[in-house]
Amino acid sequence: MARKLYELVGIEADRPFSPFCWRTRMALAHKQLPADSVPWRFTETAALAFSGQGKVPVLIDGDTTVFDSWTIAGYLEDSYPDKPSLFDGLTGKAMAAFFNNWVDNVVHGALARVILLDIYEHIGDADKAYFRKSREERFGTTLEAVVADPEAKIAAFRQILHPVRMTVRQQPYLGGAAPRYPDYTLFGAFQWARAISRRPLLAADDPIFAWRARMLEAHGGLGGKAKGYPV
Amino acid sequence: MARKLYELVGIEADRPFSPFCWRTRMALAHKQLPADSVPWRFTETAALAFSGQGKVPVLIDGDTTVFDSWTIAGYLEDSYPDKPSLFDGLTGKAMAAFFNNWVDNVVHGALARVILLDIYEHIGDADKAYFRKSREERFGTTLEAVVADPEAKIAAFRQILHPVRMTVRQQPYLGGAAPRYPDYTLFGAFQWARAISRRPLLAADDPIFAWRARMLEAHGGLGGKAKGYPV
Repeated sequence: MARKLYELVGIEADRPFSPFCWRTRMALAHKQLPADSVPWRFTETAALAFSGQGKVPVLIDGDTTVFDSWTIAGYLEDSYPDKPSLFDGLTGKAMAAFFNNWVDNVVHGALARVILLDIYEHIGDADKAYFRKSREERFGTTLEAVVADPEAKIAAFRQILHPVRMTVRQQPYLGGAAPRYPDYTLFGAFQWARAISRRPLLAADDPIFAWRARMLEAHGGLGGKAKGYPV
Repeated sequence: MARKLYELVGIEADRPFSPFCWRTRMALAHKQLPADSVPWRFTETAALAFSGQGKVPVLIDGDTTVFDSWTIAGYLEDSYPDKPSLFDGLTGKAMAAFFNNWVDNVVHGALARVILLDIYEHIGDADKAYFRKSREERFGTTLEAVVADPEAKIAAFRQILHPVRMTVRQQPYLGGAAPRYPDYTLFGAFQWARAISRRPLLAADDPIFAWRARMLEAHGGLGGKAKGYPV
């Protein structure tokens, strides 16, 4: 049975944009594990019923179904110990947990304030209704208001990333000499933006820009070859 | 030659309060390395001339002088490989670098806005003049204005720590099952506050409160036995 990854898309089935699915896609590449993509859209909850929940990524690996990108990362690490390690041990995994939580809690919120309306413009009508309602409830205002004053929103996003900037000045990757799972966690956010937004997020002389360029080329250029806008 | 650690103090020589010195003190305990404390005050720059710079912590270990808490951590890890590891490998060290940068760039700034005037009240007159001038230049306003509206400042500090809260709900320490260097990085900030401020920083039902209690008891209660105010 071929390995399958359910990935969030919009109007175009070959433009995956979920930051969480990108974490899993990069983790699979790190583990040298191919997986067919199953395009999935926000309102296709019935198609995920087999997994016992309603969100992607969902990985089917032989007889095993796993959901939630962090759970999938742990599953891949434990199931394929002879492949390159995502965490380099339990301490690495523990520290990667903090990084994951920081990106989820801080980085995604700041980036959503830049790209939320761009997502809306890349999804179909049925998804648009769901997306507008759920996100406007979450943010407490309209999509248009969330992304108002984009220059200020981008400045805030860049400021929030400052500890990353300090780190990639010291070392090529968040994982050190080579990418590890935290690199995929953050790269997922940038792939989310790249897939659906034309807005440049980083100055060309930002050390994070150079880090992202390295990540776009990683694993045979998996990230850079994906459908998206120039960064 | 006895191992010596130069540590920042104020009026009382046995009330060390520098967050960076606390990182080093905890790292030394983790490595099971005793070190005599040499009390040092902000304006005693001449006493550090031997180290080629003017800040603490400075560690003298036999014939070796090392300064900067992050550099000292790397020195201890490399010099005492048979003692318990601070990082558990190069990937752990790389991930700990991000955490260090996050605490330096984000957590310390938020906490300074709570405790800056408390520091001032624990240092002598010569240090007071230096401290007021340098910190007021850094913050662009008076010490009193920096710490105005303490309830809002504490709320902001707690909000900034949310990714830590998420993490210590999942695992007992930032390093996983046992403390590693990131635990000391963050604990240093709490020891900074505890040494000189009576202000409670965390709600008793905050998972970070329980984590801090564990850290206060670590290594024979080193942190909890140090001179400070109830937390």
